Amino acid sequence: MHPTTQRLLQSTPNRPGIDTGLLGDCIDACGICAAACAACADACLGEADLAAMRRCVRLNLDCADVCAATGVVASRTLDPDLPSVRALLEACVRICAACGAECARHGAKVAHCAACAEACRTCEQACRKLLAGWPGSA
Amino acid sequence: MHPTTQRLLQSTPNRPGIDTGLLGDCIDACGICAAACAACADACLGEADLAAMRRCVRLNLDCADVCAATGVVASRTLDPDLPSVRALLEACVRICAACGAECARHGAKVAHCAACAEACRTCEQACRKLLAGWPGSA
Amino acid sequence: MHPTTQRLLQSTPNRPGIDTGLLGDCIDACGICAAACAACADACLGEADLAAMRRCVRLNLDCADVCAATGVVASRTLDPDLPSVRALLEACVRICAACGAECARHGAKVAHCAACAEACRTCEQACRKLLAGWPGSA
Amino acid sequence: MHPTTQRLLQSTPNRPGIDTGLLGDCIDACGICAAACAACADACLGEADLAAMRRCVRLNLDCADVCAATGVVASRTLDPDLPSVRALLEACVRICAACGAECARHGAKVAHCAACAEACRTCEQACRKLLAGWPGSA
Repeated sequence: MHPTTQRLLQSTPNRPGIDTGLLGDCIDACGICAAACAACADACLGEADLAAMRRCVRLNLDCADVCAATGVVASRTLDPDLPSVRALLEACVRICAACGAECARHGAKVAHCAACAEACRTCEQACRKLLAGWPGSA
Repeated sequence: MHPTTQRLLQSTPNRPGIDTGLLGDCIDACGICAAACAACADACLGEADLAAMRRCVRLNLDCADVCAATGVVASRTLDPDLPSVRALLEACVRICAACGAECARHGAKVAHCAACAEACRTCEQACRKLLAGWPGSA
Repeated sequence: MHPTTQRLLQSTPNRPGIDTGLLGDCIDACGICAAACAACADACLGEADLAAMRRCVRLNLDCADVCAATGVVASRTLDPDLPSVRALLEACVRICAACGAECARHGAKVAHCAACAEACRTCEQACRKLLAGWPGSA
Repeated sequence: MHPTTQRLLQSTPNRPGIDTGLLGDCIDACGICAAACAACADACLGEADLAAMRRCVRLNLDCADVCAATGVVASRTLDPDLPSVRALLEACVRICAACGAECARHGAKVAHCAACAEACRTCEQACRKLLAGWPGSA
């Protein structure tokens, strides 16, 4: 967990039933994935075979938007609406999986897509782990 | 539908199976709800009985983040990952319902909460209508 | 001004020296421009001559991000840091001008760019009008 | 620099006149500050003396929005509009300074404000360093 995330989470004690380690990992992974997807979309626009990257740009942008929202919502620990956060984490899992798969298709040839695919996988896994113990029934 | 939304959607024809009217209404409602929730959170911070508004501020901020992401993702019509967008619309329905209910609790006394509750309800309905005909099984 | 914006601003009275009409117009224009730029970037990705649209996509994405932030920050009227908001409005003017000019270059041939160029111009003007009377020296 | 940021920047070579190390540090600092400010705003809402934290919440939210936009815009290195990015970096310096000062006022008593003040200072410095060598006259 990033030391800043840790300091913030340590001083906001109200998180009944949510594991601080998994929460912090998810917040960090969302932030890194959002940044990676935004940068990957831009780098895709600079590729010579731009037509082949259309869908990658598009999914990168969606993934950046959803990860950014998910990380911020997850970081709000004061009296959350748990089913809403669960639904958002599930949406984040899905878009990370879709974007990660598309990036992985290009990853052998395109270095930024390989890096972004890894960020997507890490974020997908971090959201899944947080979801597995999320309070309340699914 | 806002005339700018309509002009944009009319010149991006690739939306197999998605109703343009419902899509535009959803994009517009997400934008208005995101703005209303951001403004309502700020106005809540100015209320005399601030402690009573804690949860309202918190849900307003979540709702603003999720609506902003949902509106933008929905507006991307080039080859979307339909299950991801569906999951995000479902998350948006949930947070709009939760935030709208909290705002409605304050609405009789607090004018900005009444206005925000209405924006949340409109957005929840617009997302539900778009979801009802969303391509692919749920 | 959008009726929801108006209702929100009417119930948050603390805005010494800021004209409510100009503020509301700026908030609305930022929201519409952010949405138009996000949709235009997506529509550009679908154009046959994609290479010619690279810079348009890139500026659209910047403009969407800056307009979204500017609209939300401007809508927070409780005890703002006026020089920060001024600097952000100035950044918004610049990116709207740059993106609007690029969109206008394509506007004769590409309908979504024409619509987006208009949204950029409207937002640039709304920010300029709000800046002209912004409290404190420049 | 975060390894993901580094991998992304290494595979997007088109940055004439911009130092990759300073750019990566700025992108990272913006992401961390945005997350810290969002979490600090939430933690402030949970404080017993909530009235004393009003302005801190408000500036936290502005700082989160501006840092998020700045980090993403800075990460787009394909043919940027340099004066727009400069203006946005300047706005980011200002809001980080304002938010950091407010957080620092509470930092002796409130641990999350101390952590957030540090993130704001780091981000302000990273933006200043990037600005110092930014291409084109101010």
